[in-house]
Amino acid sequence: MDISGVITARKALFDEYLDRYLGEARTASGIFEAFAYSLQAGGKRIRPVLAMLACEAAGGGAAHALPAGLAVEMIHTFSLIHDDLPALDNDDLRRGRPTCHRRFGEATAILAGDALIFQALSVLCAAPYPAQVKVDLCTFLAEVCGTNGLVQGEHEDVMAEGRDVPLDTIEGIYGRKTSRLFEFCLYAGARVACEDAALTRALALYGTHLGHAFQAIDDILDVTSDSRTLGKSAGKDIAQSKATVVKVLGLDGARSWAQNATDRAVQALDGIGGQGTHTLREIARWMLERAM
Amino acid sequence: MDISGVITARKALFDEYLDRYLGEARTASGIFEAFAYSLQAGGKRIRPVLAMLACEAAGGGAAHALPAGLAVEMIHTFSLIHDDLPALDNDDLRRGRPTCHRRFGEATAILAGDALIFQALSVLCAAPYPAQVKVDLCTFLAEVCGTNGLVQGEHEDVMAEGRDVPLDTIEGIYGRKTSRLFEFCLYAGARVACEDAALTRALALYGTHLGHAFQAIDDILDVTSDSRTLGKSAGKDIAQSKATVVKVLGLDGARSWAQNATDRAVQALDGIGGQGTHTLREIARWMLERAM
Repeated sequence: MDISGVITARKALFDEYLDRYLGEARTASGIFEAFAYSLQAGGKRIRPVLAMLACEAAGGGAAHALPAGLAVEMIHTFSLIHDDLPALDNDDLRRGRPTCHRRFGEATAILAGDALIFQALSVLCAAPYPAQVKVDLCTFLAEVCGTNGLVQGEHEDVMAEGRDVPLDTIEGIYGRKTSRLFEFCLYAGARVACEDAALTRALALYGTHLGHAFQAIDDILDVTSDSRTLGKSAGKDIAQSKATVVKVLGLDGARSWAQNATDRAVQALDGIGGQGTHTLREIARWMLERAM
Repeated sequence: MDISGVITARKALFDEYLDRYLGEARTASGIFEAFAYSLQAGGKRIRPVLAMLACEAAGGGAAHALPAGLAVEMIHTFSLIHDDLPALDNDDLRRGRPTCHRRFGEATAILAGDALIFQALSVLCAAPYPAQVKVDLCTFLAEVCGTNGLVQGEHEDVMAEGRDVPLDTIEGIYGRKTSRLFEFCLYAGARVACEDAALTRALALYGTHLGHAFQAIDDILDVTSDSRTLGKSAGKDIAQSKATVVKVLGLDGARSWAQNATDRAVQALDGIGGQGTHTLREIARWMLERAM
Protein backbone atom coordinates (compact mmCIF):
# COMPACT_ATOMS: atom_id res chain seq x y z
CA MET A 1 0.00 0.00 0.00
CA ASP A 2 1.37 3.45 -0.85
CA ILE A 3 1.72 6.08 1.85
CA SER A 4 -1.51 7.94 1.11
CA GLY A 5 -3.35 4.60 1.36
CA VAL A 6 -1.76 3.97 4.77
CA ILE A 7 -2.83 7.40 5.98
CA THR A 8 -6.35 7.09 4.58
CA ALA A 9 -6.87 3.75 6.33
CA ARG A 10 -5.75 5.15 9.72
CA LYS A 11 -7.82 8.29 9.21
CA ALA A 12 -10.92 6.18 8.48
CA LEU A 13 -10.31 4.20 11.68
CA PHE A 14 -10.07 7.45 13.62
CA ASP A 15 -13.13 9.09 12.06
CA GLU A 16 -15.24 6.03 12.85
CA TYR A 17 -13.97 6.06 16.44
CA LEU A 18 -14.72 9.77 16.77
CA ASP A 19 -18.26 9.35 15.41
CA ARG A 20 -18.92 6.50 17.81
CA TYR A 21 -17.53 8.51 20.71
CA LEU A 22 -19.66 11.56 19.89
CA GLY A 23 -22.74 9.37 19.48
CA GLU A 24 -22.25 7.92 22.96
CA ALA A 25 -21.15 11.13 24.70
CA ARG A 26 -23.77 13.42 23.15
CA THR A 27 -25.77 15.53 25.62
CA ALA A 28 -28.38 18.24 25.09
CA SER A 29 -25.68 20.84 25.70
CA GLY A 30 -25.16 23.81 23.39
CA ILE A 31 -21.47 23.55 24.14
CA PHE A 32 -21.41 19.91 23.08
CA GLU A 33 -23.07 20.84 19.81
CA ALA A 34 -20.49 23.57 19.21
CA PHE A 35 -17.42 21.46 19.84
CA ALA A 36 -18.83 18.46 17.97
CA TYR A 37 -19.33 20.81 14.99
CA SER A 38 -15.68 21.79 15.11
CA LEU A 39 -14.44 18.25 15.78
CA GLN A 40 -16.44 16.89 12.86
CA ALA A 41 -15.44 19.61 10.41
CA GLY A 42 -13.00 17.10 8.96
CA GLY A 43 -9.38 18.01 8.65
CA LYS A 44 -6.47 15.75 7.92
CA ARG A 45 -6.43 14.03 11.32
CA ILE A 46 -2.67 14.04 10.97
CA ARG A 47 -2.13 14.08 14.75
CA PRO A 48 -4.16 10.96 15.61
CA VAL A 49 -2.75 9.23 12.51
CA LEU A 50 0.76 9.93 13.80
CA ALA A 51 -0.16 8.60 17.25
CA MET A 52 -1.42 5.40 15.61
CA LEU A 53 1.69 5.03 13.45
CA ALA A 54 3.95 5.59 16.48
CA CYS A 55 2.03 2.93 18.33
CA GLU A 56 2.56 0.53 15.45
CA ALA A 57 6.24 1.44 15.17
CA ALA A 58 6.55 0.58 18.87
CA GLY A 59 4.93 -2.81 18.39
CA GLY A 60 1.29 -2.04 19.26
CA GLY A 61 -1.88 -2.10 17.19
CA ALA A 62 -3.14 1.14 15.66
CA ALA A 63 -6.46 0.93 17.53
CA HIS A 64 -4.70 0.95 20.90
CA ALA A 65 -3.66 4.57 20.25
CA LEU A 66 -7.17 5.76 19.40
CA PRO A 67 -8.03 7.22 22.83
CA ALA A 68 -4.72 9.09 22.93
CA GLY A 69 -5.30 10.23 19.34
CA LEU A 70 -8.81 11.44 20.17
CA ALA A 71 -7.51 13.40 23.14
CA VAL A 72 -4.92 15.06 20.91
CA GLU A 73 -7.46 15.91 18.22
CA MET A 74 -9.67 17.47 20.92
CA ILE A 75 -6.76 19.57 22.17
CA HIS A 76 -5.91 20.59 18.60
CA THR A 77 -9.55 21.53 17.96
CA PHE A 78 -9.75 23.54 21.20
CA SER A 79 -6.70 25.49 20.06
CA LEU A 80 -8.25 26.17 16.63
CA ILE A 81 -11.52 27.38 18.18
CA HIS A 82 -9.72 29.79 20.50
CA ASP A 83 -7.16 30.88 17.88
CA ASP A 84 -9.96 31.79 15.46
CA LEU A 85 -11.63 34.15 17.98
CA PRO A 86 -11.87 37.86 17.14
CA ALA A 87 -9.40 38.76 19.90
CA LEU A 88 -6.81 36.39 18.41
CA ASP A 89 -6.59 35.52 14.69
CA ASN A 90 -10.15 36.66 13.93
CA ASP A 91 -10.85 34.01 11.31
CA ASP A 92 -14.23 33.42 9.69
CA LEU A 93 -13.46 30.24 7.78
CA ARG A 94 -12.02 26.94 8.97
CA ARG A 95 -12.00 23.65 7.08
CA GLY A 96 -14.37 25.18 4.53
CA ARG A 97 -17.03 26.11 7.09
CA PRO A 98 -17.76 29.11 9.31
CA THR A 99 -15.53 29.08 12.41
CA CYS A 100 -17.08 28.07 15.71
CA HIS A 101 -17.66 31.61 16.96
CA ARG A 102 -19.15 32.67 13.60
CA ARG A 103 -21.58 29.78 13.81
CA PHE A 104 -22.41 29.73 17.55
CA GLY A 105 -21.34 33.11 18.91
CA GLU A 106 -18.27 34.09 20.84
CA ALA A 107 -19.37 33.11 24.34
CA THR A 108 -20.26 29.59 23.22
CA ALA A 109 -17.02 29.23 21.25
CA ILE A 110 -14.86 30.27 24.21
CA LEU A 111 -16.65 27.81 26.49
CA ALA A 112 -16.70 25.03 23.87
CA GLY A 113 -12.93 25.33 23.57
CA ASP A 114 -12.61 25.16 27.36
CA ALA A 115 -14.87 22.13 27.51
CA LEU A 116 -12.79 20.30 24.90
CA ILE A 117 -9.76 20.39 27.19
CA PHE A 118 -11.73 18.66 29.93
CA GLN A 119 -13.21 16.25 27.38
CA ALA A 120 -9.69 15.32 26.27
CA LEU A 121 -8.69 14.74 29.89
CA SER A 122 -11.76 12.59 30.38
CA VAL A 123 -10.92 10.48 27.31
CA LEU A 124 -7.35 9.91 28.49
CA CYS A 125 -8.47 8.95 31.99
CA ALA A 126 -11.10 6.49 30.69
CA ALA A 127 -8.69 4.83 28.24
CA PRO A 128 -7.67 1.17 28.73
CA TYR A 129 -4.12 2.11 29.77
CA PRO A 130 -2.46 1.35 33.14
CA ALA A 131 -2.77 4.13 35.74
CA GLN A 132 0.90 5.06 35.49
CA VAL A 133 0.68 5.36 31.70
CA LYS A 134 -2.34 7.66 32.06
CA VAL A 135 -0.45 9.82 34.54
CA ASP A 136 2.54 9.95 32.16
CA LEU A 137 0.27 11.00 29.28
CA CYS A 138 -1.51 13.66 31.37
CA THR A 139 1.80 14.97 32.70
CA PHE A 140 3.28 15.32 29.24
CA LEU A 141 0.07 16.73 27.76
CA ALA A 142 0.05 19.46 30.41
CA GLU A 143 3.72 20.15 29.64
CA VAL A 144 3.32 20.47 25.85
CA CYS A 145 0.14 22.58 26.08
CA GLY A 146 0.88 25.08 28.84
CA THR A 147 3.41 27.85 29.36
CA ASN A 148 6.12 25.74 27.67
CA GLY A 149 3.96 24.72 24.74
CA LEU A 150 0.86 25.25 22.66
CA VAL A 151 -0.88 28.08 24.51
CA GLN A 152 2.36 29.96 25.07
CA GLY A 153 3.27 29.53 21.39
CA GLU A 154 -0.08 30.89 20.31
CA HIS A 155 0.45 33.89 22.56
CA GLU A 156 3.90 34.56 21.09
CA ASP A 157 2.42 34.15 17.61
CA VAL A 158 -0.25 36.79 18.29
CA MET A 159 2.25 39.12 19.95
CA ALA A 160 4.70 38.81 17.02
CA GLU A 161 2.12 39.99 14.48
CA GLY A 162 3.27 43.05 12.56
CA ARG A 163 6.69 43.01 14.18
CA ASP A 164 10.05 42.22 12.63
CA VAL A 165 11.19 39.09 14.39
CA PRO A 166 14.37 37.13 13.69
CA LEU A 167 14.37 33.53 12.49
CA ASP A 168 15.21 32.04 15.87
CA THR A 169 12.15 33.69 17.43
CA ILE A 170 10.00 32.17 14.69
CA GLU A 171 11.59 28.78 15.27
CA GLY A 172 10.70 29.11 18.95
CA ILE A 173 7.10 29.96 18.09
CA TYR A 174 6.84 27.01 15.69
CA GLY A 175 8.28 24.77 18.36
CA ARG A 176 5.77 25.75 21.01
CA LYS A 177 2.62 26.32 18.98
CA THR A 178 2.96 23.28 16.70
CA SER A 179 5.85 20.91 17.31
CA ARG A 180 5.22 20.14 20.93
CA LEU A 181 1.78 18.67 20.24
CA PHE A 182 3.31 16.62 17.41
CA GLU A 183 5.94 15.50 19.90
CA PHE A 184 3.13 14.45 22.23
CA CYS A 185 1.38 12.43 19.49
CA LEU A 186 4.45 10.34 18.82
CA TYR A 187 5.30 10.05 22.50
CA ALA A 188 1.75 8.97 23.37
CA GLY A 189 1.52 6.39 20.58
CA ALA A 190 4.80 4.84 21.70
CA ARG A 191 4.10 5.12 25.43
CA VAL A 192 0.86 3.16 25.27
CA ALA A 193 2.59 0.41 23.28
CA CYS A 194 5.91 -0.14 25.04
CA GLU A 195 8.22 0.61 27.95
CA ASP A 196 11.21 1.32 25.72
CA ALA A 197 12.30 4.81 26.75
CA ALA A 198 14.95 5.19 24.02
CA LEU A 199 12.49 4.26 21.26
CA THR A 200 9.85 6.57 22.73
CA ARG A 201 12.37 9.42 22.87
CA ALA A 202 13.48 8.85 19.25
CA LEU A 203 9.88 8.85 18.02
CA ALA A 204 9.10 11.99 20.03
CA LEU A 205 12.15 13.72 18.51
CA TYR A 206 10.91 12.75 15.04
CA GLY A 207 7.61 14.39 16.05
CA THR A 208 9.37 17.60 17.06
CA HIS A 209 11.13 18.02 13.70
CA LEU A 210 8.05 16.89 11.76
CA GLY A 211 6.04 19.54 13.58
CA HIS A 212 8.51 22.21 12.51
CA ALA A 213 8.29 21.00 8.90
CA PHE A 214 4.48 20.82 9.10
CA GLN A 215 4.15 24.41 10.31
CA ALA A 216 6.55 25.74 7.66
CA ILE A 217 4.64 23.84 4.95
CA ASP A 218 1.35 25.23 6.31
CA ASP A 219 2.77 28.74 6.06
CA ILE A 220 4.10 28.12 2.54
CA LEU A 221 0.66 26.85 1.43
CA ASP A 222 -0.96 29.97 2.92
CA VAL A 223 0.96 31.91 0.26
CA THR A 224 0.79 29.47 -2.66
CA SER A 225 -2.78 28.09 -2.35
CA ASP A 226 -6.28 29.55 -2.53
CA SER A 227 -8.91 29.49 0.24
CA ARG A 228 -10.92 26.79 -1.50
CA THR A 229 -8.02 24.36 -1.59
CA LEU A 230 -7.00 25.13 1.98
CA GLY A 231 -10.52 25.22 3.46
CA LYS A 232 -9.46 28.29 5.40
CA SER A 233 -8.71 31.88 4.53
CA ALA A 234 -5.56 31.91 2.36
CA GLY A 235 -3.12 34.79 2.29
CA LYS A 236 -3.95 35.74 5.87
CA ASP A 237 -0.38 35.53 7.10
CA ILE A 238 0.73 38.35 4.84
CA ALA A 239 -2.44 40.34 5.50
CA GLN A 240 -1.89 40.05 9.27
CA SER A 241 1.90 40.26 8.94
CA LYS A 242 2.33 36.95 10.77
CA ALA A 243 5.76 35.79 11.87
CA THR A 244 6.54 32.90 9.51
CA VAL A 245 9.64 31.47 7.88
CA VAL A 246 8.21 32.66 4.53
CA LYS A 247 8.21 36.23 5.78
CA VAL A 248 11.85 36.06 6.87
CA LEU A 249 13.36 33.70 4.28
CA GLY A 250 11.10 34.09 1.24
CA LEU A 251 9.38 31.16 -0.47
CA ASP A 252 12.54 29.37 -1.64
CA GLY A 253 14.25 29.87 1.69
CA ALA A 254 11.16 28.57 3.50
CA ARG A 255 11.14 25.48 1.29
CA SER A 256 14.77 24.79 2.15
CA TRP A 257 13.99 25.30 5.80
CA ALA A 258 11.10 22.79 5.60
CA GLN A 259 13.36 20.37 3.72
CA ASN A 260 15.92 20.63 6.48
CA ALA A 261 13.37 20.01 9.22
CA THR A 262 12.08 17.00 7.28
CA ASP A 263 15.61 15.60 6.98
CA ARG A 264 16.08 15.95 10.70
CA ALA A 265 12.80 14.16 11.38
CA VAL A 266 13.90 11.27 9.20
CA GLN A 267 17.34 11.21 10.82
CA ALA A 268 15.78 10.96 14.27
CA LEU A 269 14.62 7.48 13.25
CA ASP A 270 18.14 6.33 12.36
CA GLY A 271 18.90 3.09 14.07
CA ILE A 272 15.24 2.14 14.53
CA GLY A 273 14.19 -0.57 12.13
CA GLY A 274 10.89 -2.07 11.08
CA GLN A 275 8.04 -1.32 8.71
CA GLY A 276 6.59 1.24 11.16
CA THR A 277 9.49 3.66 10.95
CA HIS A 278 9.63 3.18 7.18
CA THR A 279 6.06 4.54 7.06
CA LEU A 280 6.99 7.50 9.27
CA ARG A 281 9.90 8.36 6.97
CA GLU A 282 7.59 8.21 3.98
CA ILE A 283 5.02 10.44 5.66
CA ALA A 284 7.61 13.11 6.31
CA ARG A 285 8.61 13.17 2.62
CA TRP A 286 4.98 13.01 1.47
CA MET A 287 4.08 16.04 3.61
CA LEU A 288 6.99 18.00 2.19
CA GLU A 289 5.95 17.39 -1.43
CA ARG A 290 2.81 19.47 -0.88
CA ALA A 291 4.97 22.56 -0.36
CA MET A 292 7.34 22.06 -3.28
CA MET B 1 -9.95 28.25 68.01
CA ASP B 2 -13.12 29.76 66.56
CA ILE B 3 -14.15 28.98 63.00
CA SER B 4 -12.74 32.10 61.40
CA GLY B 5 -9.39 31.32 63.07
CA VAL B 6 -9.48 27.80 61.61
CA ILE B 7 -10.15 29.18 58.15
CA THR B 8 -7.51 31.90 58.42
CA ALA B 9 -4.86 29.35 59.44
CA ARG B 10 -5.65 27.07 56.44
CA LYS B 11 -5.82 30.06 54.08
CA ALA B 12 -2.37 31.22 55.26
CA LEU B 13 -0.99 27.72 54.63
CA PHE B 14 -2.44 27.80 51.12
CA ASP B 15 -1.27 31.32 50.27
CA GLU B 16 2.26 30.46 51.34
CA TYR B 17 2.16 27.30 49.20
CA LEU B 18 0.84 29.25 46.21
CA ASP B 19 3.56 31.90 46.55
CA ARG B 20 6.25 29.22 46.72
CA TYR B 21 4.79 27.43 43.72
CA LEU B 22 4.64 30.61 41.62
CA GLY B 23 8.17 31.51 42.63
CA GLU B 24 9.46 28.14 41.41
CA ALA B 25 7.29 27.87 38.28
CA ARG B 26 7.77 31.46 37.10
CA THR B 27 8.86 31.85 33.47
CA ALA B 28 9.36 34.92 31.28
CA SER B 29 5.93 34.30 29.76
CA GLY B 30 3.30 37.01 29.36
CA ILE B 31 0.69 34.37 29.99
CA PHE B 32 2.34 33.34 33.24
CA GLU B 33 2.35 36.96 34.39
CA ALA B 34 -1.36 37.27 33.55
CA PHE B 35 -2.53 34.16 35.36
CA ALA B 36 -0.24 34.79 38.32
CA TYR B 37 -1.85 38.25 38.59
CA SER B 38 -5.29 36.65 38.77
CA LEU B 39 -4.21 33.84 41.08
CA GLN B 40 -2.61 36.30 43.48
CA ALA B 41 -5.49 38.74 43.50
CA GLY B 42 -6.47 37.26 46.85
CA GLY B 43 -9.94 35.94 47.36
CA LYS B 44 -11.25 33.81 50.16
CA ARG B 45 -9.50 30.60 49.04
CA ILE B 46 -12.62 28.80 50.23
CA ARG B 47 -12.12 25.90 47.78
CA PRO B 48 -8.58 24.90 48.84
CA VAL B 49 -9.56 25.49 52.48
CA LEU B 50 -12.44 23.04 52.02
CA ALA B 51 -10.11 20.49 50.38
CA MET B 52 -7.78 20.78 53.38
CA LEU B 53 -10.63 20.42 55.88
CA ALA B 54 -11.98 17.38 54.01
CA CYS B 55 -8.53 15.86 54.13
CA GLU B 56 -8.40 16.43 57.88
CA ALA B 57 -11.92 15.07 58.35
CA ALA B 58 -10.73 11.92 56.54
CA GLY B 59 -7.74 11.49 58.81
CA GLY B 60 -5.02 13.25 56.76
CA GLY B 61 -2.97 16.35 57.40
CA ALA B 62 -4.09 19.65 55.87
CA ALA B 63 -0.84 20.04 53.92
CA HIS B 64 -1.40 16.77 52.08
CA ALA B 65 -4.36 18.38 50.27
CA LEU B 66 -2.39 21.43 49.13
CA PRO B 67 -1.62 20.22 45.56
CA ALA B 68 -5.28 19.26 45.05
CA GLY B 69 -6.33 22.59 46.53
CA LEU B 70 -3.95 24.49 44.26
CA ALA B 71 -5.30 22.69 41.21
CA VAL B 72 -8.85 23.63 42.24
CA GLU B 73 -7.94 27.26 42.82
CA MET B 74 -6.33 27.34 39.36
CA ILE B 75 -9.48 25.91 37.79
CA HIS B 76 -11.60 28.40 39.71
CA THR B 77 -9.35 31.25 38.57
CA PHE B 78 -9.45 30.06 34.93
CA SER B 79 -13.25 30.17 35.13
CA LEU B 80 -13.23 33.69 36.59
CA ILE B 81 -10.87 34.97 33.87
CA HIS B 82 -13.03 33.57 31.09
CA ASP B 83 -16.35 34.52 32.75
CA ASP B 84 -15.20 38.12 33.05
CA LEU B 85 -14.49 38.42 29.29
CA PRO B 86 -16.52 40.90 27.22
CA ALA B 87 -18.29 38.07 25.36
CA LEU B 88 -19.44 36.59 28.67
CA ASP B 89 -20.11 38.63 31.82
CA ASN B 90 -18.04 41.61 30.66
CA ASP B 91 -16.71 42.54 34.07
CA ASP B 92 -14.09 45.22 34.74
CA LEU B 93 -13.48 44.59 38.41
CA ARG B 94 -12.55 41.42 40.27
CA ARG B 95 -11.28 41.16 43.83
CA GLY B 96 -10.85 44.91 43.89
CA ARG B 97 -8.56 45.03 40.84
CA PRO B 98 -9.02 45.30 37.06
CA THR B 99 -10.03 41.95 35.58
CA CYS B 100 -7.40 39.99 33.66
CA HIS B 101 -8.53 41.16 30.21
CA ARG B 102 -8.75 44.80 31.38
CA ARG B 103 -5.19 44.56 32.62
CA PHE B 104 -3.54 42.41 29.92
CA GLY B 105 -5.90 42.51 26.93
CA GLU B 106 -8.43 39.99 25.72
CA ALA B 107 -6.10 37.66 23.76
CA THR B 108 -3.77 37.25 26.72
CA ALA B 109 -6.68 36.69 29.12
CA ILE B 110 -8.22 33.97 26.95
CA LEU B 111 -4.88 32.18 26.67
CA ALA B 112 -4.01 32.70 30.34
CA GLY B 113 -7.29 31.01 31.29
CA ASP B 114 -6.49 28.13 28.94
CA ALA B 115 -2.98 27.80 30.36
CA LEU B 116 -4.33 27.61 33.91
CA ILE B 117 -6.25 24.44 33.07
CA PHE B 118 -3.03 22.76 31.93
CA GLN B 119 -1.20 24.17 34.94
CA ALA B 120 -3.80 22.60 37.23
CA LEU B 121 -3.37 19.27 35.45
CA SER B 122 0.38 19.57 35.82
CA VAL B 123 0.06 20.23 39.57
CA LEU B 124 -2.20 17.21 40.08
CA CYS B 125 0.12 14.94 38.10
CA ALA B 126 3.21 16.09 40.01
CA ALA B 127 1.57 15.68 43.42
CA PRO B 128 2.84 13.05 45.87
CA TYR B 129 -0.25 10.85 45.42
CA PRO B 130 -0.33 7.27 44.10
CA ALA B 131 -0.92 6.97 40.33
CA GLN B 132 -4.44 5.60 40.78
CA VAL B 133 -5.37 8.50 43.09
CA LYS B 134 -4.10 10.97 40.48
CA VAL B 135 -6.16 9.26 37.79
CA ASP B 136 -9.24 9.36 40.06
CA LEU B 137 -8.70 13.08 40.70
CA CYS B 138 -8.17 13.87 37.00
CA THR B 139 -11.22 11.80 36.03
CA PHE B 140 -13.47 13.55 38.51
CA LEU B 141 -12.02 16.98 37.71
CA ALA B 142 -12.82 16.46 34.01
CA GLU B 143 -16.32 15.35 35.00
CA VAL B 144 -17.13 18.34 37.23
CA CYS B 145 -15.66 20.91 34.82
CA GLY B 146 -16.92 19.80 31.40
CA THR B 147 -20.31 19.40 29.77
CA ASN B 148 -21.76 18.10 33.06
CA GLY B 149 -20.23 20.79 35.17
CA LEU B 150 -18.53 24.16 35.46
CA VAL B 151 -18.19 25.19 31.80
CA GLN B 152 -21.67 23.93 30.92
CA GLY B 153 -23.10 25.79 33.94
CA GLU B 154 -21.42 29.00 32.89
CA HIS B 155 -22.90 28.60 29.41
CA GLU B 156 -26.39 28.07 30.83
CA ASP B 157 -25.86 31.07 33.09
CA VAL B 158 -24.98 33.32 30.15
CA MET B 159 -27.83 31.94 28.03
CA ALA B 160 -30.36 32.49 30.84
CA GLU B 161 -29.56 36.20 31.09
CA GLY B 162 -32.62 38.37 30.53
CA ARG B 163 -34.95 35.40 30.34
CA ASP B 164 -37.61 34.28 32.78
CA VAL B 165 -36.37 30.96 34.06
CA PRO B 166 -38.06 28.77 36.69
CA LEU B 167 -36.43 27.88 40.00
CA ASP B 168 -35.43 24.36 38.95
CA THR B 169 -33.48 25.74 36.00
CA ILE B 170 -31.62 28.08 38.34
CA GLU B 171 -30.92 25.20 40.70
CA GLY B 172 -29.44 23.29 37.76
CA ILE B 173 -27.23 26.23 36.84
CA TYR B 174 -26.05 26.63 40.46
CA GLY B 175 -25.32 22.91 40.55
CA ARG B 176 -23.14 22.91 37.46
CA LYS B 177 -21.45 26.29 37.64
CA THR B 178 -20.67 26.23 41.37
CA SER B 179 -21.57 23.12 43.33
CA ARG B 180 -19.71 20.56 41.25
CA LEU B 181 -16.33 22.20 41.88
CA PHE B 182 -17.18 22.36 45.59
CA GLU B 183 -18.06 18.67 45.35
CA PHE B 184 -14.64 18.08 43.79
CA CYS B 185 -12.85 19.96 46.60
CA LEU B 186 -14.36 17.77 49.27
CA TYR B 187 -13.93 14.61 47.20
CA ALA B 188 -10.30 15.41 46.48
CA GLY B 189 -9.43 16.23 50.09
CA ALA B 190 -10.95 12.95 51.24
CA ARG B 191 -9.58 10.86 48.35
CA VAL B 192 -5.97 11.80 48.99
CA ALA B 193 -6.37 10.94 52.68
CA CYS B 194 -8.30 7.66 52.71
CA GLU B 195 -9.81 4.74 50.82
CA ASP B 196 -13.17 5.03 52.60
CA ALA B 197 -15.66 5.40 49.73
CA ALA B 198 -18.68 6.04 51.99
CA LEU B 199 -16.91 8.81 53.89
CA THR B 200 -15.66 10.34 50.61
CA ARG B 201 -19.20 10.26 49.19
CA ALA B 202 -20.68 11.88 52.30
CA LEU B 203 -18.12 14.68 52.23
CA ALA B 204 -18.68 15.21 48.48
CA LEU B 205 -22.44 15.45 49.08
CA TYR B 206 -21.79 18.06 51.78
CA GLY B 207 -19.78 19.91 49.14
CA THR B 208 -22.65 19.82 46.66
CA HIS B 209 -25.14 21.38 49.09
CA LEU B 210 -22.57 23.83 50.42
CA GLY B 211 -21.91 24.93 46.83
CA HIS B 212 -25.60 25.63 46.35
CA ALA B 213 -25.68 27.67 49.54
CA PHE B 214 -22.48 29.49 48.58
CA GLN B 215 -23.85 30.56 45.19
CA ALA B 216 -27.15 31.73 46.66
CA ILE B 217 -25.29 33.71 49.33
CA ASP B 218 -23.06 35.22 46.63
CA ASP B 219 -26.15 36.33 44.71
CA ILE B 220 -27.76 37.74 47.86
CA LEU B 221 -24.61 39.75 48.62
CA ASP B 222 -24.61 41.10 45.05
CA VAL B 223 -27.87 42.83 45.99
CA THR B 224 -27.16 43.78 49.60
CA SER B 225 -23.47 44.84 49.44
CA ASP B 226 -21.49 47.51 47.66
CA SER B 227 -18.64 47.00 45.18
CA ARG B 228 -16.02 48.01 47.69
CA THR B 229 -17.05 45.35 50.20
CA LEU B 230 -17.37 42.69 47.50
CA GLY B 231 -14.22 43.60 45.57
CA LYS B 232 -16.23 43.15 42.39
CA SER B 233 -19.00 45.08 40.69
CA ALA B 234 -22.09 44.89 42.92
CA GLY B 235 -25.63 45.01 41.57
CA LYS B 236 -24.55 43.42 38.28
CA ASP B 237 -27.02 40.53 38.52
CA ILE B 238 -30.00 42.85 38.38
CA ALA B 239 -28.37 45.07 35.73
CA GLN B 240 -27.70 42.01 33.54
CA SER B 241 -30.93 40.27 34.56
CA LYS B 242 -29.03 37.20 35.75
CA ALA B 243 -30.89 34.03 36.67
CA THR B 244 -30.55 33.89 40.47
CA VAL B 245 -32.66 32.66 43.35
CA VAL B 246 -33.00 36.31 44.41
CA LYS B 247 -34.64 37.15 41.10
CA VAL B 248 -37.19 34.34 41.41
CA LEU B 249 -37.77 34.18 45.17
CA GLY B 250 -36.92 37.70 46.37
CA LEU B 251 -34.40 38.41 49.13
CA ASP B 252 -36.27 36.68 51.95
CA GLY B 253 -37.05 33.68 49.78
CA ALA B 254 -33.42 33.46 48.68
CA ARG B 255 -32.29 33.54 52.30
CA SER B 256 -34.64 30.65 53.14
CA TRP B 257 -33.35 28.78 50.13
CA ALA B 258 -29.73 29.30 51.24
CA GLN B 259 -30.70 28.24 54.76
CA ASN B 260 -32.23 25.06 53.38
CA ALA B 261 -29.13 24.23 51.30
CA THR B 262 -26.98 24.84 54.39
CA ASP B 263 -29.13 22.49 56.45
CA ARG B 264 -28.75 19.80 53.81
CA ALA B 265 -25.00 20.25 53.75
CA VAL B 266 -24.87 19.79 57.52
CA GLN B 267 -27.20 16.77 57.34
CA ALA B 268 -24.92 15.11 54.77
CA LEU B 269 -22.38 14.80 57.59
CA ASP B 270 -24.81 12.96 59.89
CA GLY B 271 -23.25 9.81 61.18
CA ILE B 272 -19.68 10.99 60.62
CA GLY B 273 -17.95 11.94 63.83
CA GLY B 274 -14.77 13.73 64.73
CA GLN B 275 -13.50 17.26 65.08
CA GLY B 276 -13.11 17.56 61.29
CA THR B 277 -16.78 17.32 60.49
CA HIS B 278 -17.59 19.62 63.39
CA THR B 279 -15.48 22.26 61.63
CA LEU B 280 -17.26 21.66 58.33
CA ARG B 281 -20.66 22.10 60.03
CA GLU B 282 -19.46 25.34 61.56
CA ILE B 283 -18.17 26.63 58.22
CA ALA B 284 -21.54 26.06 56.59
CA ARG B 285 -23.30 28.09 59.29
CA TRP B 286 -20.60 30.78 59.26
CA MET B 287 -20.98 31.24 55.50
CA LEU B 288 -24.73 31.59 55.83
CA GLU B 289 -24.46 34.36 58.43
CA ARG B 290 -22.93 36.66 55.82
CA ALA B 291 -26.18 36.63 53.89
CA MET B 292 -28.57 37.12 56.82
